[in-house]
Amino acid sequence: MPGFKTLPGFRDLYPDDLAVRAHIMGTWREVARRYGFREYDGPPLEPLGLYTEKSGPEIVQQLYNFTDKGEREVALRPEMTPTLARMVGARANGLRKPIKWFAIPQLFRYERQQRGRLREHFQLNMDIVGEGTVAADAELLAAAIDVLRAFGLTHEDFVARVSDRHFLRAIFVGAGVPAERLTLAYNIVDKLEREGAAAIRKRLVDTVGIETASADRILDALNRTSLKEVEDLVGENEWLHPDFLDLKDLFDRLRAMDLEAYVQIDLSVVRGLAYYTGTVFELFDRRGELRAICGGGRYDDLLSQISGVDLPALGFGMGDVVLTELLKDRGLLPKSGQGIDYYLVAEDYELRHVLLRTVHQLRDAGCSVEYSLGLALRNRQFKEASALGARKVVVVTAEDAARGSVPIPELSS
Amino acid sequence: MPGFKTLPGFRDLYPDDLAVRAHIMGTWREVARRYGFREYDGPPLEPLGLYTEKSGPEIVQQLYNFTDKGEREVALRPEMTPTLARMVGARANGLRKPIKWFAIPQLFRYERQQRGRLREHFQLNMDIVGEGTVAADAELLAAAIDVLRAFGLTHEDFVARVSDRHFLRAIFVGAGVPAERLTLAYNIVDKLEREGAAAIRKRLVDTVGIETASADRILDALNRTSLKEVEDLVGENEWLHPDFLDLKDLFDRLRAMDLEAYVQIDLSVVRGLAYYTGTVFELFDRRGELRAICGGGRYDDLLSQISGVDLPALGFGMGDVVLTELLKDRGLLPKSGQGIDYYLVAEDYELRHVLLRTVHQLRDAGCSVEYSLGLALRNRQFKEASALGARKVVVVTAEDAARGSVPIPELSS
Repeated sequence: MPGFKTLPGFRDLYPDDLAVRAHIMGTWREVARRYGFREYDGPPLEPLGLYTEKSGPEIVQQLYNFTDKGEREVALRPEMTPTLARMVGARANGLRKPIKWFAIPQLFRYERQQRGRLREHFQLNMDIVGEGTVAADAELLAAAIDVLRAFGLTHEDFVARVSDRHFLRAIFVGAGVPAERLTLAYNIVDKLEREGAAAIRKRLVDTVGIETASADRILDALNRTSLKEVEDLVGENEWLHPDFLDLKDLFDRLRAMDLEAYVQIDLSVVRGLAYYTGTVFELFDRRGELRAICGGGRYDDLLSQISGVDLPALGFGMGDVVLTELLKDRGLLPKSGQGIDYYLVAEDYELRHVLLRTVHQLRDAGCSVEYSLGLALRNRQFKEASALGARKVVVVTAEDAARGSVPIPELSS
Repeated sequence: MPGFKTLPGFRDLYPDDLAVRAHIMGTWREVARRYGFREYDGPPLEPLGLYTEKSGPEIVQQLYNFTDKGEREVALRPEMTPTLARMVGARANGLRKPIKWFAIPQLFRYERQQRGRLREHFQLNMDIVGEGTVAADAELLAAAIDVLRAFGLTHEDFVARVSDRHFLRAIFVGAGVPAERLTLAYNIVDKLEREGAAAIRKRLVDTVGIETASADRILDALNRTSLKEVEDLVGENEWLHPDFLDLKDLFDRLRAMDLEAYVQIDLSVVRGLAYYTGTVFELFDRRGELRAICGGGRYDDLLSQISGVDLPALGFGMGDVVLTELLKDRGLLPKSGQGIDYYLVAEDYELRHVLLRTVHQLRDAGCSVEYSLGLALRNRQFKEASALGARKVVVVTAEDAARGSVPIPELSS
């Protein structure tokens, strides 16, 4: 009864596709290791409440959720941060701070099916818990940048746009936005790139209820993308100074790490999520052809909300889908194809036991070795060796069998 | 609102636990590479029908299944073979045969909660598709054995018990079991180890309806665990000879690979599953303290059933849970703990930028490097370096800053 298909939005990864995923995951792990992050994982299925607690009941529309056979409300994880918060909370006292952890979970969302939109993806999550100073923000952002650099991408390919919730708040409050409308205002400026300055100005005036001149002051601040321009703004408005210190320190640290070319200020980066409390950043391709490659920031209140343990925290997520598109586009994906060390050809079926002994010895020594399982003719065996990308072909002969050993050529290094 | 717990039967993997999983998966991948298997993956969520088609509707009781928001009946994958069959079937013509693939899926079953029983685990799946000769059976079984050897286990720790469905059938038919009661008889002898010979004899007589003498002949055959004993049986019953050739060839090949000490014949290995068609095997710890470490065999009919493409196939699954218990018990798990290359100590907070530059240069060179993110005192920084297992501690001084470079000691190799 043939005809089962992959569910819409899910991927079959054939070996060539999986080689790409392995390259991406391997690079993620390598950079995390250099930065001293340790890998963890949690269950792909979690109590539904873990997500509604963080994001509100409306998140359920986007989840793969159901009632399990034990009458529990459960969901396939749509993100990793609530699991991290739960795990850290459960052992908060026993863990050395700062906690620097990463994970590579597969995540699931029931999104409306659109061209190229998937319902699952893999995501690198790097988080630092238990460190409240901006040194941690610099460490995390540098890690995100270095992950992309490790794939061969440069500052000509991508840029990190950085904002700071405290600084943004100071600008908004200074422009007369009432505290209770700050979230509303954040969500409006988040649309700046898509909707343009005129539309945003109008909405700030109409919806948030501030003067046009105040809206213009906000738009002027959002327009400043270099550290210098922002420093000028702060110079003219001394009361902004205290809330600018962290952002300034962050950029100084990234400059010390020689990563200045990879960052710019963009106060319109809000990331919709109400839960960010400090630094917020997104990494984009410079050509602006793709969605964000990576997004993250500081979320100092989440742990106490989820786990009851009050620890400052920050992190980012980087998915495999946009990243794969970008690497493919820039020709930075590894060549596909298998490649093995040795292919052994038996001159005669009677030599199969000598061949098998040699194959097994080579494999025991760590080499990748293939041979014909079937009763293939000599010529076909050579063809198969070539198709498999064998570095050396070894023909096992009757003389080898008589002598009791098969001469093996060294692999050129 | 604290208090979310991990779902029963699911695991949180803290970094030390994940290091164990990484070691296991790394070893699995390493041996698969030596054998020329290529990795693939499929979706963890599949159409429910994929599993009921293979295993019948009763499987649903054990599944995490639900109706998704698009009214599709779906299930978290309980095994990988149906996905493999679907994927191979979809591209059967374009794939070079034999197909040698492996995967490391996370699998899910809603089992009744028992002590130590999990509802998810990771499983190495290795399969060969498109090769009907017993050479493939030897290749696959050798791979399973070598996976365990690669962990440091020896023939004193584990053994592969091997049966062959054709040979078993010949013995049963020869003892008078009617064709339509063969499956019933297989399921009875599958319980031999647990229930003992007397109980099995009684059930063969009472349920299958054969003579006591016939039941004894079956039990005598099941009792022979060395190749020699089975060869004697075949010698005395010439009509068994044709159905014995494959099993004999399999053992000859394993002997050629110097793996004879790892295999024994055990015709009572049935693995309940009706779908095995030839070789069937299970790997057990020699002390008999654990459930099977690994099980597999030849299933030549499944691909046409699932995908409509008629290709011979065989494979095995090896879960991470029993394997981890065994390795732990034998002291073969790697030591936990992090270990980094360098820890950099700043003598003074003012030196942070010099420190950051040096940290970043070392990380760019591939080293794992840590430093204090907070404003820790010198002594505390040294303590942290020690806690992180740093191989070298480097103190950044004012002189380094003045000179503009920090001397870095080589890592002893």
